[in-house]
Amino acid sequence: MRIIATVDLWSLSLPLSTLAQDVSADSSAPEETEIRQLHEQQVIDCYGGDIEGFKRAYWKSEALTFSSGGQTTRGWQATRDRYRTRYATKEMMGKLSFSELEFQEVGTGGYLVLGRWRLDRATDHPHGNFSLVLRRFEEGWRIIHDHTSLTP
Amino acid sequence: MRIIATVDLWSLSLPLSTLAQDVSADSSAPEETEIRQLHEQQVIDCYGGDIEGFKRAYWKSEALTFSSGGQTTRGWQATRDRYRTRYATKEMMGKLSFSELEFQEVGTGGYLVLGRWRLDRATDHPHGNFSLVLRRFEEGWRIIHDHTSLTP
Repeated sequence: MRIIATVDLWSLSLPLSTLAQDVSADSSAPEETEIRQLHEQQVIDCYGGDIEGFKRAYWKSEALTFSSGGQTTRGWQATRDRYRTRYATKEMMGKLSFSELEFQEVGTGGYLVLGRWRLDRATDHPHGNFSLVLRRFEEGWRIIHDHTSLTP
Repeated sequence: MRIIATVDLWSLSLPLSTLAQDVSADSSAPEETEIRQLHEQQVIDCYGGDIEGFKRAYWKSEALTFSSGGQTTRGWQATRDRYRTRYATKEMMGKLSFSELEFQEVGTGGYLVLGRWRLDRATDHPHGNFSLVLRRFEEGWRIIHDHTSLTP
Protein backbone atom coordinates (compact mmCIF):
# COMPACT_ATOMS: atom_id res chain seq x y z
CA MET A 1 0.00 0.00 0.00
CA ARG A 2 1.48 3.33 -1.08
CA ILE A 3 0.25 6.85 -0.75
CA ILE A 4 1.49 9.55 -3.07
CA ALA A 5 0.20 13.09 -3.25
CA THR A 6 0.61 15.11 -6.41
CA VAL A 7 -0.26 18.75 -6.40
CA ASP A 8 -1.97 20.16 -9.48
CA LEU A 9 -0.33 17.66 -11.82
CA TRP A 10 -3.39 17.53 -14.02
CA SER A 11 -4.23 21.19 -14.09
CA LEU A 12 -4.89 22.18 -17.68
CA SER A 13 -2.98 25.40 -17.13
CA LEU A 14 -0.06 23.07 -18.00
CA PRO A 15 0.44 22.23 -21.67
CA LEU A 16 -0.61 18.64 -22.45
CA SER A 17 2.96 17.71 -23.47
CA THR A 18 4.04 18.50 -19.89
CA LEU A 19 1.37 16.17 -18.56
CA ALA A 20 2.60 13.33 -20.74
CA GLN A 21 6.16 13.93 -19.58
CA ASP A 22 5.08 13.85 -15.92
CA VAL A 23 3.38 10.49 -16.45
CA SER A 24 6.38 8.88 -18.11
CA ALA A 25 8.76 10.25 -15.45
CA ASP A 26 6.53 8.92 -12.66
CA SER A 27 8.23 6.35 -10.42
CA SER A 28 4.90 5.03 -9.05
CA ALA A 29 3.60 1.47 -9.24
CA PRO A 30 2.41 0.55 -12.78
CA GLU A 31 -1.19 0.48 -11.49
CA GLU A 32 -0.89 4.09 -10.37
CA THR A 33 0.55 5.19 -13.70
CA GLU A 34 -2.33 3.48 -15.52
CA ILE A 35 -4.92 5.11 -13.27
CA ARG A 36 -3.23 8.52 -13.66
CA GLN A 37 -3.43 8.13 -17.43
CA LEU A 38 -7.15 7.38 -17.13
CA HIS A 39 -7.52 10.62 -15.15
CA GLU A 40 -5.43 12.57 -17.63
CA GLN A 41 -7.66 11.40 -20.46
CA GLN A 42 -10.72 12.51 -18.47
CA VAL A 43 -9.30 16.00 -18.12
CA ILE A 44 -8.50 16.14 -21.86
CA ASP A 45 -12.02 14.91 -22.71
CA CYS A 46 -13.59 17.41 -20.36
CA TYR A 47 -11.49 20.19 -21.91
CA GLY A 48 -12.82 19.16 -25.33
CA GLY A 49 -16.41 19.05 -24.05
CA ASP A 50 -16.48 15.30 -24.74
CA ILE A 51 -18.72 13.73 -22.08
CA GLU A 52 -18.72 10.35 -23.83
CA GLY A 53 -14.92 10.28 -23.60
CA PHE A 54 -15.00 11.48 -19.99
CA LYS A 55 -17.41 8.69 -19.06
CA ARG A 56 -15.18 6.02 -20.62
CA ALA A 57 -13.22 5.87 -17.34
CA TYR A 58 -16.34 4.55 -15.63
CA TRP A 59 -17.44 0.92 -15.45
CA LYS A 60 -20.08 0.37 -18.15
CA SER A 61 -22.42 -1.50 -15.83
CA GLU A 62 -25.72 -1.06 -14.10
CA ALA A 63 -23.77 -1.69 -10.84
CA LEU A 64 -21.79 1.56 -11.26
CA THR A 65 -22.67 4.03 -8.47
CA PHE A 66 -22.14 7.76 -8.10
CA SER A 67 -22.77 9.42 -4.72
CA SER A 68 -22.94 13.12 -4.00
CA GLY A 69 -24.84 15.38 -1.60
CA GLY A 70 -26.57 12.50 0.17
CA GLN A 71 -27.89 10.95 -3.06
CA THR A 72 -26.70 7.94 -5.06
CA THR A 73 -27.15 7.57 -8.83
CA ARG A 74 -27.10 3.99 -10.07
CA GLY A 75 -25.99 2.57 -13.41
CA TRP A 76 -23.79 3.78 -16.25
CA GLN A 77 -26.67 5.19 -18.26
CA ALA A 78 -28.14 7.18 -15.34
CA THR A 79 -24.76 8.62 -14.34
CA ARG A 80 -24.09 9.63 -17.96
CA ASP A 81 -27.51 11.28 -18.16
CA ARG A 82 -26.73 13.15 -14.93
CA TYR A 83 -23.52 14.51 -16.48
CA ARG A 84 -25.32 15.38 -19.71
CA THR A 85 -27.90 17.43 -17.80
CA ARG A 86 -25.46 19.17 -15.47
CA TYR A 87 -22.81 19.84 -18.09
CA ALA A 88 -24.91 20.33 -21.21
CA THR A 89 -22.51 22.80 -22.84
CA LYS A 90 -18.73 23.22 -23.01
CA GLU A 91 -19.16 26.39 -20.89
CA MET A 92 -20.98 24.40 -18.20
CA MET A 93 -18.23 21.76 -18.20
CA GLY A 94 -15.68 24.53 -17.73
CA LYS A 95 -12.02 23.80 -17.11
CA LEU A 96 -11.67 20.77 -14.85
CA SER A 97 -8.58 20.07 -12.79
CA PHE A 98 -7.71 17.27 -10.40
CA SER A 99 -5.07 17.64 -7.71
CA GLU A 100 -3.58 16.02 -4.61
CA LEU A 101 -4.16 12.51 -5.95
CA GLU A 102 -3.55 9.70 -3.41
CA PHE A 103 -3.45 6.02 -4.31
CA GLN A 104 -4.18 3.14 -1.99
CA GLU A 105 -4.37 -0.50 -3.01
CA VAL A 106 -7.57 -2.28 -1.91
CA GLY A 107 -7.14 -6.02 -2.16
CA THR A 108 -5.69 -7.45 -5.35
CA GLY A 109 -6.98 -5.70 -8.46
CA GLY A 110 -8.66 -2.88 -6.56
CA TYR A 111 -7.65 0.71 -5.89
CA LEU A 112 -8.91 3.66 -3.89
CA VAL A 113 -8.01 7.07 -5.28
CA LEU A 114 -8.64 10.25 -3.31
CA GLY A 115 -8.19 13.72 -4.68
CA ARG A 116 -9.49 17.22 -5.08
CA TRP A 117 -11.44 18.60 -8.05
CA ARG A 118 -12.02 22.12 -9.26
CA LEU A 119 -14.16 23.41 -12.07
CA ASP A 120 -13.25 26.86 -13.38
CA ARG A 121 -16.19 28.41 -15.20
CA ALA A 122 -17.01 31.97 -16.22
CA THR A 123 -19.51 32.41 -13.41
CA ASP A 124 -18.33 30.09 -10.63
CA HIS A 125 -15.49 27.88 -9.38
CA PRO A 126 -17.02 24.89 -7.58
CA HIS A 127 -14.47 22.62 -5.90
CA GLY A 128 -14.26 19.80 -3.40
CA ASN A 129 -12.90 16.31 -2.95
CA PHE A 130 -13.64 12.87 -4.35
CA SER A 131 -13.14 9.21 -3.55
CA LEU A 132 -12.91 6.79 -6.47
CA VAL A 133 -12.97 3.02 -6.18
CA LEU A 134 -11.48 1.27 -9.21
CA ARG A 135 -11.27 -2.32 -10.32
CA ARG A 136 -9.04 -3.79 -12.99
CA PHE A 137 -11.01 -5.33 -15.85
CA GLU A 138 -9.75 -6.97 -19.04
CA GLU A 139 -10.09 -3.60 -20.79
CA GLY A 140 -8.14 -1.82 -18.02
CA TRP A 141 -8.91 0.09 -14.82
CA ARG A 142 -12.44 1.41 -14.49
CA ILE A 143 -14.13 3.49 -11.78
CA ILE A 144 -16.84 1.36 -10.14
CA HIS A 145 -17.84 3.97 -7.53
CA ASP A 146 -17.41 7.72 -7.25
CA HIS A 147 -18.28 9.73 -4.13
CA THR A 148 -17.84 13.43 -4.77
CA SER A 149 -18.29 16.23 -2.23
CA LEU A 150 -18.57 19.95 -2.78
CA THR A 151 -16.78 22.33 -0.40
CA PRO A 152 -19.57 24.57 0.97
CA MET B 1 -19.23 -9.40 -6.79
CA ARG B 2 -22.66 -9.28 -5.22
CA ILE B 3 -24.98 -6.44 -4.41
CA ILE B 4 -27.58 -6.78 -1.70
CA ALA B 5 -29.78 -4.02 -0.37
CA THR B 6 -31.20 -4.24 3.12
CA VAL B 7 -33.72 -1.70 4.25
CA ASP B 8 -33.55 -0.46 7.83
CA LEU B 9 -32.02 -3.70 9.11
CA TRP B 10 -29.91 -1.82 11.62
CA SER B 11 -32.45 0.65 12.87
CA LEU B 12 -32.33 0.72 16.64
CA SER B 13 -36.11 0.88 16.75
CA LEU B 14 -35.64 -2.92 16.52
CA PRO B 15 -34.62 -4.74 19.72
CA LEU B 16 -30.97 -5.83 19.58
CA SER B 17 -31.97 -9.52 19.80
CA THR B 18 -33.77 -9.06 16.46
CA LEU B 19 -30.60 -7.65 14.95
CA ALA B 20 -28.59 -10.67 16.06
CA GLN B 21 -31.22 -12.97 14.58
CA ASP B 22 -31.16 -11.14 11.25
CA VAL B 23 -27.39 -11.53 11.07
CA SER B 24 -27.45 -15.27 11.77
CA ALA B 25 -30.30 -15.81 9.27
CA ASP B 26 -28.41 -13.88 6.58
CA SER B 27 -27.60 -15.92 3.47
CA SER B 28 -24.90 -13.47 2.28
CA ALA B 29 -21.23 -14.23 1.67
CA PRO B 30 -19.26 -14.72 4.93
CA GLU B 31 -17.41 -11.42 4.27
CA GLU B 32 -20.72 -9.56 4.18
CA THR B 33 -21.90 -11.14 7.42
CA GLU B 34 -18.62 -10.14 9.11
CA ILE B 35 -18.90 -6.56 7.84
CA ARG B 36 -22.57 -6.38 8.92
CA GLN B 37 -21.55 -7.48 12.42
CA LEU B 38 -18.94 -4.71 12.49
CA HIS B 39 -21.71 -2.24 11.59
CA GLU B 40 -24.07 -3.71 14.16
CA GLN B 41 -21.44 -3.25 16.86
CA GLN B 42 -20.97 0.37 15.77
CA VAL B 43 -24.69 1.03 16.21
CA ILE B 44 -24.66 -0.61 19.66
CA ASP B 45 -21.57 1.41 20.68
CA CYS B 46 -23.13 4.62 19.40
CA TYR B 47 -26.33 3.82 21.32
CA GLY B 48 -24.23 3.44 24.47
CA GLY B 49 -22.36 6.70 23.79
CA ASP B 50 -19.12 4.71 23.39
CA ILE B 51 -17.02 6.52 20.78
CA GLU B 52 -13.96 4.33 21.47
CA GLY B 53 -16.05 1.26 20.65
CA PHE B 54 -17.54 2.94 17.59
CA LYS B 55 -14.07 3.79 16.29
CA ARG B 56 -12.87 0.19 16.65
CA ALA B 57 -14.35 -0.54 13.20
CA TYR B 58 -11.80 1.85 11.69
CA TRP B 59 -8.25 1.01 10.65
CA LYS B 60 -5.92 2.14 13.45
CA SER B 61 -3.46 3.77 11.09
CA GLU B 62 -2.28 7.20 10.07
CA ALA B 63 -3.34 6.22 6.53
CA LEU B 64 -7.04 6.08 7.53
CA THR B 65 -9.00 8.81 5.74
CA PHE B 66 -12.42 10.33 6.35
CA SER B 67 -13.96 12.64 3.74
CA SER B 68 -17.01 14.82 4.14
CA GLY B 69 -18.18 18.19 2.82
CA GLY B 70 -15.15 18.68 0.60
CA GLN B 71 -12.65 18.06 3.41
CA THR B 72 -10.51 15.02 4.26
CA THR B 73 -9.38 14.16 7.78
CA ARG B 74 -6.28 11.96 7.94
CA GLY B 75 -5.21 9.40 10.52
CA TRP B 76 -6.99 7.39 13.20
CA GLN B 77 -6.24 9.89 15.97
CA ALA B 78 -7.51 12.91 14.01
CA THR B 79 -10.71 11.13 12.93
CA ARG B 80 -11.34 10.06 16.53
CA ASP B 81 -10.80 13.63 17.73
CA ARG B 82 -13.25 14.83 15.09
CA TYR B 83 -15.91 12.44 16.44
CA ARG B 84 -15.12 13.42 20.04
CA THR B 85 -15.68 17.09 19.20
CA ARG B 86 -18.81 16.62 17.10
CA TYR B 87 -20.41 14.04 19.36
CA ALA B 88 -19.16 15.12 22.79
CA THR B 89 -22.27 13.94 24.66
CA LYS B 90 -24.68 11.00 24.35
CA GLU B 91 -27.35 13.51 23.30
CA MET B 92 -25.13 14.80 20.48
CA MET B 93 -24.47 11.21 19.33
CA GLY B 94 -28.24 10.65 19.27
CA LYS B 95 -29.74 7.46 17.90
CA LEU B 96 -27.81 6.30 14.85
CA SER B 97 -29.25 4.01 12.21
CA PHE B 98 -27.81 2.58 9.02
CA SER B 99 -29.98 1.34 6.17
CA GLU B 100 -29.96 0.21 2.54
CA LEU B 101 -26.55 -1.44 2.89
CA GLU B 102 -24.97 -2.62 -0.38
CA PHE B 103 -21.87 -4.78 -0.61
CA GLN B 104 -19.47 -4.97 -3.51
CA GLU B 105 -16.21 -6.89 -3.55
CA VAL B 106 -13.16 -4.83 -4.60
CA GLY B 107 -10.27 -7.09 -5.48
CA THR B 108 -9.43 -9.91 -3.09
CA GLY B 109 -9.66 -8.88 0.55
CA GLY B 110 -11.34 -5.56 -0.20
CA TYR B 111 -14.96 -4.41 0.02
CA LEU B 112 -16.98 -1.35 -0.84
CA VAL B 113 -20.07 -0.79 1.31
CA LEU B 114 -22.64 1.86 0.45
CA GLY B 115 -25.51 2.82 2.68
CA ARG B 116 -27.61 5.53 4.24
CA TRP B 117 -27.20 6.96 7.74
CA ARG B 118 -29.58 8.85 9.98
CA LEU B 119 -29.03 10.45 13.34
CA ASP B 120 -32.15 11.04 15.42
CA ARG B 121 -31.54 13.70 18.03
CA ALA B 122 -33.84 15.85 20.13
CA THR B 123 -33.26 18.93 17.98
CA ASP B 124 -32.44 17.60 14.51
CA HIS B 125 -32.39 14.53 12.27
CA PRO B 126 -29.37 14.80 9.96
CA HIS B 127 -29.17 12.06 7.32
CA GLY B 128 -27.36 11.19 4.13
CA ASN B 129 -25.31 8.48 2.48
CA PHE B 130 -21.87 6.97 2.95
CA SER B 131 -19.27 4.96 1.07
CA LEU B 132 -16.95 2.76 3.10
CA VAL B 133 -13.87 1.01 1.77
CA LEU B 134 -12.79 -1.94 3.92
CA ARG B 135 -9.78 -4.21 3.93
CA ARG B 136 -9.39 -7.50 5.68
CA PHE B 137 -6.60 -7.48 8.26
CA GLU B 138 -5.46 -10.23 10.63
CA GLU B 139 -7.76 -8.78 13.28
CA GLY B 140 -10.70 -8.71 10.85
CA TRP B 141 -12.35 -6.22 8.50
CA ARG B 142 -11.54 -2.57 9.10
CA ILE B 143 -12.75 0.62 7.39
CA ILE B 144 -9.77 2.24 5.64
CA HIS B 145 -11.76 5.08 4.08
CA ASP B 146 -15.12 6.68 4.81
CA HIS B 147 -16.76 9.28 2.58
CA THR B 148 -19.94 10.58 4.17
CA SER B 149 -22.40 13.05 2.63
CA LEU B 150 -25.21 14.98 4.24
CA THR B 151 -28.51 15.36 2.39
CA PRO B 152 -29.04 19.14 2.18
